[in-house]
Amino acid sequence: MDKINVKLGEDSYDILIGQNLLSKLGKFIHELGYFSKVAIITDINVASLYLEKLDGIISKSRLNTCSLVLPEGESSKSWKNLEAVVEWILKEKLDRDALVIAFGGGVIGDLVGLSASISRRGIALVQIPTTLLAQVDSSVGGKTAINSKFGKNLIGTFYQPKMVISDSKLLSSLNDRQFLSGMSEVIKYGLILDRKFFQWIEMSLKKIANRDPDTIGELIARSCEIKAQIVHEDEKENGIRALLNLGHTFGHALEAYAGFSQKLLHGEAVSIGTVIAFKFSKFLGICSEECIGRLVKVYSQLGMLSLMEEMPMKMPSSKTLLKFMMQDKKVNKGNLVFILPEKIGKCMVNDMVPNRTIKEFLDYICA
Amino acid sequence: MDKINVKLGEDSYDILIGQNLLSKLGKFIHELGYFSKVAIITDINVASLYLEKLDGIISKSRLNTCSLVLPEGESSKSWKNLEAVVEWILKEKLDRDALVIAFGGGVIGDLVGLSASISRRGIALVQIPTTLLAQVDSSVGGKTAINSKFGKNLIGTFYQPKMVISDSKLLSSLNDRQFLSGMSEVIKYGLILDRKFFQWIEMSLKKIANRDPDTIGELIARSCEIKAQIVHEDEKENGIRALLNLGHTFGHALEAYAGFSQKLLHGEAVSIGTVIAFKFSKFLGICSEECIGRLVKVYSQLGMLSLMEEMPMKMPSSKTLLKFMMQDKKVNKGNLVFILPEKIGKCMVNDMVPNRTIKEFLDYICA
Repeated sequence: MDKINVKLGEDSYDILIGQNLLSKLGKFIHELGYFSKVAIITDINVASLYLEKLDGIISKSRLNTCSLVLPEGESSKSWKNLEAVVEWILKEKLDRDALVIAFGGGVIGDLVGLSASISRRGIALVQIPTTLLAQVDSSVGGKTAINSKFGKNLIGTFYQPKMVISDSKLLSSLNDRQFLSGMSEVIKYGLILDRKFFQWIEMSLKKIANRDPDTIGELIARSCEIKAQIVHEDEKENGIRALLNLGHTFGHALEAYAGFSQKLLHGEAVSIGTVIAFKFSKFLGICSEECIGRLVKVYSQLGMLSLMEEMPMKMPSSKTLLKFMMQDKKVNKGNLVFILPEKIGKCMVNDMVPNRTIKEFLDYICA
Repeated sequence: MDKINVKLGEDSYDILIGQNLLSKLGKFIHELGYFSKVAIITDINVASLYLEKLDGIISKSRLNTCSLVLPEGESSKSWKNLEAVVEWILKEKLDRDALVIAFGGGVIGDLVGLSASISRRGIALVQIPTTLLAQVDSSVGGKTAINSKFGKNLIGTFYQPKMVISDSKLLSSLNDRQFLSGMSEVIKYGLILDRKFFQWIEMSLKKIANRDPDTIGELIARSCEIKAQIVHEDEKENGIRALLNLGHTFGHALEAYAGFSQKLLHGEAVSIGTVIAFKFSKFLGICSEECIGRLVKVYSQLGMLSLMEEMPMKMPSSKTLLKFMMQDKKVNKGNLVFILPEKIGKCMVNDMVPNRTIKEFLDYICA
């Protein structure tokens, strides 16, 4: 088992990574302290696969439990579900000595995290991410969210969990599309901060595609290490944490354009968005064509998307794309904030690109 | 002008207290930093008295403004209004460089504070409290909230404002009942921590009743000093901050019983609840009859409520009262948490009173 500590003073916590960790869940919870009641909140897909097993494990540990099963999918991150989850937490009389477990992918982690953070001004939270995307990214760092009609993740809090338990065995139930969606974020860590990690990915493509357990374990651990370091340095995203948004300004706009539907998964939008970010960087004379080639090669060898043309829908117009980009959180004093790659392993934050230049670039790629 | 600093590391902020501070609002905002847009959120009552004036002051300071007017009253602290305020903030494109001003009493402060804290994971907030209750209590310390169907203030965050501006001139529009409602919290500070402040109140009853400006200014400043010190020592209410709940376990139950209506204001419920807390303490052999007498004398000389019989409604049964008490946040491992006065200026936290004793006491006072 790997253990990575996210250093945030009083709010520090461990990420546990390994095979079959769920079977020891009772022990992990007892190590965290006394809890009057443990609530498991999950979605219908995860529940059908794992809820009975998890309930059994927790009950055996002499913990008082209850559970709530939500619908699945990004549309769950709504005001309606936030109210439903919070009122359920209160109805179950979960008090400040209780524990809420978010058991699912990024949607469940975001929604349940926000619910726990505003129930009685904060109930203890443990994240048990069940997708690669959630294990390497969304479960770590304390960002919680639901979606607004004005854009994705615009409503939320910073609320750190007491522990993250990443059981890589859970990933076996993911189909290839879901698995590869998580790879977008893994590859991103190499691109923004760790050239050697990117090289290791380039060398390990076959093992990754075959989901070799040791390779996947290493990949999750390295991703969490990088994310933990970034969150330690900049919890509230006033600086370096912004780098994690590489590919996300374009990516969120594409997701919004696709109506946050299963037509385009988050990771698929991010891989396409990351290629657009590299192209924008090249358009501005910051990175080389060669970098783009290396990136696209990795994506395509893994079977990931890299071009807007590959989306199962009409290409957006440049105007539409810009409209959705402007609705994103990543706007500073009215200017869009871009994460621009300089080379593999190094990116810069830039909020000074003139609107006219942005428009010209969008016209160019949407043509 | 008095300036009191609430010391919370990076989240520290000033409370400004004085007459006619609103006229300098533009200057205060500029001193806080650059803001792309300033949103004033208030209720219909405050808007009819002051919004035009405030809008004028801010516009003169070359700040880009917008405003939202909400209905008044405790029922505004609802999911419906939370969604409406947050979506309005997003519609107005208030980004992370914007400022939200909560301009009103405790209801507006709680609702707008929560809205600002979850919009884009936190937009800068300034509190301009317009009631005595809000100036001495709810605007300071970062507690935000809406109500659940399971109880008052059960949904919320800890979110510190960037500044609190308490203009005592605003209090002139309060009627006596509203003013005295705030006095419950002022007197509470003396009861829990500051015997001398309570003595000063006993000596100043006439001036307080006449709302002598200097006396009111002193009373607000001393209250804020005590609250700032408590919040500094225990922001998240893991210890001493619980003392601020003196009278509130009983008080919230009475408010819930009254349906959170204008029939019983928060401060009225608190003064009655505080007398009950003293009586409970005496029932347990902790405080003397003499303390209760001193307290009731202050309340009655100011024209405040001290007995359940004075409420404009039927007395609750002991069973009803207990039911509402159990729904409160102040429950620890299933036990009710009581703030019990030992003497004027000293209270203890106790979560070990057996249920049977609580029931006997409630039977006694509800008989």
